[in-house]
Amino acid sequence: MFNYKISIAYDGTHYSGWQIQPNAKSIQEMIQRAISIFLHEEVKLIGSGRTDSGTHAKGQVAHFKSEQRINSRRFVRAMNGILPFDIRVTDMEQVDLDFHARYSAKGKIYHYHICLDPVQSPFDRLYSWHYCRNVDVEKLKEAAQCFLGTHDFTTFANVGSHMRNPVKTIRRIDCIETEKGVRLEFEGDGFLYKMVRNIVGTMVEVSEGKREATEIAGLFEAKDRRKACKAAPAHGLFLVKVLY
Amino acid sequence: MFNYKISIAYDGTHYSGWQIQPNAKSIQEMIQRAISIFLHEEVKLIGSGRTDSGTHAKGQVAHFKSEQRINSRRFVRAMNGILPFDIRVTDMEQVDLDFHARYSAKGKIYHYHICLDPVQSPFDRLYSWHYCRNVDVEKLKEAAQCFLGTHDFTTFANVGSHMRNPVKTIRRIDCIETEKGVRLEFEGDGFLYKMVRNIVGTMVEVSEGKREATEIAGLFEAKDRRKACKAAPAHGLFLVKVLY
Repeated sequence: MFNYKISIAYDGTHYSGWQIQPNAKSIQEMIQRAISIFLHEEVKLIGSGRTDSGTHAKGQVAHFKSEQRINSRRFVRAMNGILPFDIRVTDMEQVDLDFHARYSAKGKIYHYHICLDPVQSPFDRLYSWHYCRNVDVEKLKEAAQCFLGTHDFTTFANVGSHMRNPVKTIRRIDCIETEKGVRLEFEGDGFLYKMVRNIVGTMVEVSEGKREATEIAGLFEAKDRRKACKAAPAHGLFLVKVLY
Repeated sequence: MFNYKISIAYDGTHYSGWQIQPNAKSIQEMIQRAISIFLHEEVKLIGSGRTDSGTHAKGQVAHFKSEQRINSRRFVRAMNGILPFDIRVTDMEQVDLDFHARYSAKGKIYHYHICLDPVQSPFDRLYSWHYCRNVDVEKLKEAAQCFLGTHDFTTFANVGSHMRNPVKTIRRIDCIETEKGVRLEFEGDGFLYKMVRNIVGTMVEVSEGKREATEIAGLFEAKDRRKACKAAPAHGLFLVKVLY
C-alpha cells in the first residue's frame, strides 16, 4: 500500500465547496473521480479540511492510498488533463503511510482580500470582497491584535458537521495594504468552520467604527455565535498553504 | 446636445466581444441598454474599436450623445448598479461635441499575457495564454524589434468588417518577464482586426525556434494573411488604454 499527498489549487466559484455532498458539484468529488479514472480503481480522497462554496485555494492538500506505484509527473499531467481548468493538481508525492492530510497538519495560512476601490475591477469580482465603505486600516490592525494568540473561538465558529475543540491559536494576522485595498493574512494551528470569515466580518465592523476593538474580549467570553458580526463573503477567502 | 465619454473595464469571457451583433451578447449592447434604461432615452454608444470574444478591457473608451445634462458620479453609480459585475463603468466626463471615441483616438495600449508555468494557476486560466513549450524570451524580444515602426500590416490583419488603411505604426513592444511568464505590451497609433493576436502568434513561433526573426520582413512584404502564424488566443489580450 502506498500513500500519496497531492497539492491542489482551485477557483471555488463554480463549486459547492470542497466537501462531497449529494446533488452538488464539489472539488473533492471532481478530484476523487479523476484519480479513480486514472488509476482504474476507486480511491478515497481526504482533504486537509473543507472550504466553503465560492472560497478558493492556492495550496489545498489531500491524500489518498493505493496499491499502485504512481509516477508523480505522469499523475500531475493526467490529472490536469482530466480535470476542468478551474481545478489544478500542482504537485504529488509519495509520503509515509501514517501521513494524514487533516490530522498531520500543523497549521494553515489563509488570505482574505478586501477591495476598497469605489469601483471594483471586473477581474477581482470573484476574488475579493468589495467593501466600499470607510475602512480605517489602523483600526483593522488594532482589531487583528485582539484575535492573536490562544482563545476559545466558539463565538467565531459556525456549527459545522465536525465540531472540534474550539480552542485555537492564531499565530499571525497581517493587514497588508495593496493597490486595491487590504489583504488579511491569517496563520494559525487550525481554524473552525467559517472562523476566518467571521473574524474578518468583526474586524471590518471595528475598522469602520461600528464596534470597538475593546468589545472583542467580551465576544470571546460570551461563547455565542450570535454576538459576532456577519461573516465576510466566501469569495474573498483563499486557503493559501497547509503546514505540516 | 451633450457629448459624454465613458471609460469601461470588462471581463470578456462571457461575451461575444465588444460589437453589437444579432443573437449574441455583446459588451456594447449591455452598456448601451444600461444607459438607455438610466436616461429613459435610446442612445447610440460608439466605442474606440472592437474587442474579440474572450478579450478583456481595463480601459475601453466609448462616447454617446444626449440632450440631457448628466451628473458623472450619479451616472457611474447607476451604470454599475444596472450592469453585471463583469462590466464596470469606471469614469464618465462631458467632452467637446466633436470628440469621437474611435476617430479622436491617437493610439492604443494592449497587453498580452503568456503563462509559462508548467501548471497554469486556475485564477489565470481566463486571463493568460498557457503556453508550456520552450519559449526563449530573448528571441521574443528579437522578434518584437521586427514589428516596431511603420509597416503595412496586411499580413498580420484578419479581414474585418471595417477594412481600414493597413499602414500602422507600433511605437513600443515591451516583453516583460513576470512571476508566471511574460507580458507583452504594445503601444501604437492603431491596430487592425486581430493584429495584436497575429503578431503575438508569430513572435511566439520565433521564440521557440519554429521561425527566424529574419523571416518577418518577408512576411510584411508578402501582404498575405496566410503567411503569418496562427493568432494567439483571445483571452490573453487586454485593451489597457486608449490614448487621445
